[in-house]
Amino acid sequence: VKRLTRAAVLAVGSELLTPSRLDTNSLFVTAELNRHGIDVVFKSVLGDDADELARGLEHALGRVDVVVCSGGLGPTADDLTRDVVATVLGRTLYTADDLANGIRRRFEARGLSMPRINLRQALVPEGAVVLANQVGTAPGLWIEHGDQVVVLLPGPPRELRPMFEAVAHERLAPRAGGRVIVQRIVRVTGRSESHVEEAIRALYRDWASAQVPVMVTILASLGQVEIHLSARAPEQSEAHRALSAAVEAVEERLGADVYSSDGRAMEQIVGDLLLTRGWCAALAESCTGGLIASRLTDVPGSSRYVDRGVVAYANEAKTSLLGVSTDLLAAHGAVSEAVARSMAEGVRVRAGVDLGIGVTGVAGPGGGSEAKPVGTVAVAVSTVLESRSRLHRFAGERTLVKFQASQAALNLARLVLES
Amino acid sequence: VKRLTRAAVLAVGSELLTPSRLDTNSLFVTAELNRHGIDVVFKSVLGDDADELARGLEHALGRVDVVVCSGGLGPTADDLTRDVVATVLGRTLYTADDLANGIRRRFEARGLSMPRINLRQALVPEGAVVLANQVGTAPGLWIEHGDQVVVLLPGPPRELRPMFEAVAHERLAPRAGGRVIVQRIVRVTGRSESHVEEAIRALYRDWASAQVPVMVTILASLGQVEIHLSARAPEQSEAHRALSAAVEAVEERLGADVYSSDGRAMEQIVGDLLLTRGWCAALAESCTGGLIASRLTDVPGSSRYVDRGVVAYANEAKTSLLGVSTDLLAAHGAVSEAVARSMAEGVRVRAGVDLGIGVTGVAGPGGGSEAKPVGTVAVAVSTVLESRSRLHRFAGERTLVKFQASQAALNLARLVLES
Repeated sequence: VKRLTRAAVLAVGSELLTPSRLDTNSLFVTAELNRHGIDVVFKSVLGDDADELARGLEHALGRVDVVVCSGGLGPTADDLTRDVVATVLGRTLYTADDLANGIRRRFEARGLSMPRINLRQALVPEGAVVLANQVGTAPGLWIEHGDQVVVLLPGPPRELRPMFEAVAHERLAPRAGGRVIVQRIVRVTGRSESHVEEAIRALYRDWASAQVPVMVTILASLGQVEIHLSARAPEQSEAHRALSAAVEAVEERLGADVYSSDGRAMEQIVGDLLLTRGWCAALAESCTGGLIASRLTDVPGSSRYVDRGVVAYANEAKTSLLGVSTDLLAAHGAVSEAVARSMAEGVRVRAGVDLGIGVTGVAGPGGGSEAKPVGTVAVAVSTVLESRSRLHRFAGERTLVKFQASQAALNLARLVLES
Repeated sequence: VKRLTRAAVLAVGSELLTPSRLDTNSLFVTAELNRHGIDVVFKSVLGDDADELARGLEHALGRVDVVVCSGGLGPTADDLTRDVVATVLGRTLYTADDLANGIRRRFEARGLSMPRINLRQALVPEGAVVLANQVGTAPGLWIEHGDQVVVLLPGPPRELRPMFEAVAHERLAPRAGGRVIVQRIVRVTGRSESHVEEAIRALYRDWASAQVPVMVTILASLGQVEIHLSARAPEQSEAHRALSAAVEAVEERLGADVYSSDGRAMEQIVGDLLLTRGWCAALAESCTGGLIASRLTDVPGSSRYVDRGVVAYANEAKTSLLGVSTDLLAAHGAVSEAVARSMAEGVRVRAGVDLGIGVTGVAGPGGGSEAKPVGTVAVAVSTVLESRSRLHRFAGERTLVKFQASQAALNLARLVLES
């Protein structure tokens, strides 16, 4: 059988052709394909139109070994992927009884009766393998067509991801080219994209000419810079070895500004540090409005180390809930390192925990002044041993300021916990 | 000359085929095309490979009237768009002296000598119109090919946007159909996608055959279903009128489950209802971990109506911060409507505000039991006049449960505020 080396990724849905929606599934699908050494040759977004879908699929089948389609597997009349693929590949559709029963049971478990149209989701092209959907009603499909493969996946990311991960591992990997592409992401905070580039660019030439070459892309995103390193090798272990050496070289040059090199997000890093110490944390948030608490509690098991959070917008709330003195507020203003420290200490002492985080700032668009313009944010961390604070000035609109402030506060907590 | 009605948008660049980059230019290009009544039939991302580019362009020319390409106009060897387009359209390339001089002057103005390779950017296919680049060195190109048009734009958004805006206005609009496309989104919560479809599908036929036809797409996303309506008409006002009638028909069938029909998100809807009443709100969150506070405070001006939030994970925090009695916790368990009501009332009374929201539940993955499995969430709203609560069971992993719980709590607050 021919090796699978070239893929096309198709996203189906008219909404993805409007000015307000992007196909993001293809990023996950691409990462999985690359992991098994399959290149993505092109991506397309197609509307819910039988003729366009058919022409797009035919074009892809003329170019690549693997076509991965997401979307258009729902129950409604505009979900056409199943039908079009069956037509283009010359297969008839039959109703799979076990699928039909499974879908009916999902509805009944929620106390609902299954609408008749949902039976469409039990239609299967002859010769296709059904891919189980653990999360929703739309099953996926794996269809071999001569030497080629067509994979149909549901559009919702939470349904698509586990399904494609499983099928890529079980069915694509054994037929792929025997070279893997492995990626690692080093996350840096507190430096600009160009400062990161300056610090590490001397490494690029050696990486490019190594026996297992390492490619690098630097991406600035909100509150952080990401260094994407990827290596292609016959074996996972060789690629991982080359990447580990590259990550070490990066960490040597960027020091404590590197906060993650194993895929963990900032909130997970801070959570793991708290767990390691056996510490509990409490949060006092003003301008971040609960975002830090929400990010920390996104991590499974965070109830072991997040005790409580207080969102204190009004000065009165800062005083009554956190014990910030009215004198301090009057002397320094609500947006100040002194108040952030007092908030962090206040919440730590009142909760009776080991670490307190305090944040106060001007998220905008209103509330700025000449001395403290929109984007001014003070963050503080308090423990029994010490109190640290920093004053930042962030750019961007309200939600961007909030996120950058939460990132800076969590990073300060990381530095305190690491020291 | 044939009217231009159907477009394809191509993005060129191998970096856009990696797991970490998305083409976002196509959103802007789509909005401009739609504004002039031109539909985007499909979008593709192509790598820096002459053969793939040629096949992708040929495919597009077989399907649409207008092909808009972004990227691949730089000076380096992997910038192939110009050459490939000339080959596919059968044009020779010549060096435009004025372009070459302009590029040379841009370098000289920065005190640099022009690298020879930059002369590639002065190459023009015969018969093409050069589109001036006010910001960078890569000129754009407008190429008529029989009844069809190919537009080549530079990849950097700040170069592409003004250039495409200008050429769309000057050259596309006069050849477009003289029709505009306008979109509106109706957001629904508390119903499944297929139940929404069943409720409104009877409307589709009239919409499709109306003088100003209205097209509909239904999209399920987390905690809500979106109905995307779009109308095409000779004038903006006619399209808006048709959409208003369609929205009204939808609202009539879905009643209070429609929470937004003007683009506002749930947190903005609740915020505006609070503002209208002159009310302040306070939040008592357990399993949502601050997410409701964070969503409400994403809205500019929310400091006027968000007084405070309390994230009370531990039972002890529910008692000390919110006054939930230990007897109540023992009798009903922390995850119960009774405790959610007590949290909502407790935070409302202690903050001295008009409306309190309380949420308690099992976000998972741990903490579930037979009686209260992962995903069980109680939400409550308390005012001076009334107390309402609901028990939900949500599917999905931790962050999905958190979001759905925040949506249900905000929706209950909306219903209370609207009544």
